[in-house]
Amino acid sequence: MPDKDIIQSYITELKRGNLVLAVLGSLTTPHYGYALLQTLQERGMDIEANTLYPLLRRLEKQELLVSDWDTTESRPRKYYSISDTGKDVRTKLFEEWKDMQKSLIGIYTEE
Amino acid sequence: MPDKDIIQSYITELKRGNLVLAVLGSLTTPHYGYALLQTLQERGMDIEANTLYPLLRRLEKQELLVSDWDTTESRPRKYYSISDTGKDVRTKLFEEWKDMQKSLIGIYTEE
Repeated sequence: MPDKDIIQSYITELKRGNLVLAVLGSLTTPHYGYALLQTLQERGMDIEANTLYPLLRRLEKQELLVSDWDTTESRPRKYYSISDTGKDVRTKLFEEWKDMQKSLIGIYTEE
Repeated sequence: MPDKDIIQSYITELKRGNLVLAVLGSLTTPHYGYALLQTLQERGMDIEANTLYPLLRRLEKQELLVSDWDTTESRPRKYYSISDTGKDVRTKLFEEWKDMQKSLIGIYTEE
């Protein structure tokens, strides 16, 4: 049996790149952190808050996301959405993803 | 325009996880390093020797690959192939990849 940690580290690596794409793809509609977590989970992205929240802050700092506070409710919430820069990055990443997807399908269906 | 370094770092992140899957998928047939590099490039995986070779050594150290020297030619070559442990890891990674692929397709076709 392979070492569980080894498998987990490769799964984490695989998820990391795809997660950015999932976040950028989901934030065409503004979401606050927890709502995004739920949206991603509903769409089958198995992710935890302590992975998602730092990523949102990082993407905002890099100006791929913008945020806006909604203070109309009793509990203020920070809504994130994709910026124009984020949309450019998303387009490029999505192209790369499609290319890799094609390669992998080729490799795995040849067997 | 988004920062080129930012885009590049996300592309690299995206590739890293997929590359392991591509390598494990390709080594059902034994390859020496340079031949694998060519196989991967032919299949559309844009990768450089200085990324692939350390990965091969790491995968061997983790016992996901086994290697064998072919000394029948004038220049001895180290052939890598997937181990049974590697096959287990590959199966699990491929399942994860398919799930993520499905999620991402869902996210990107909803728009």
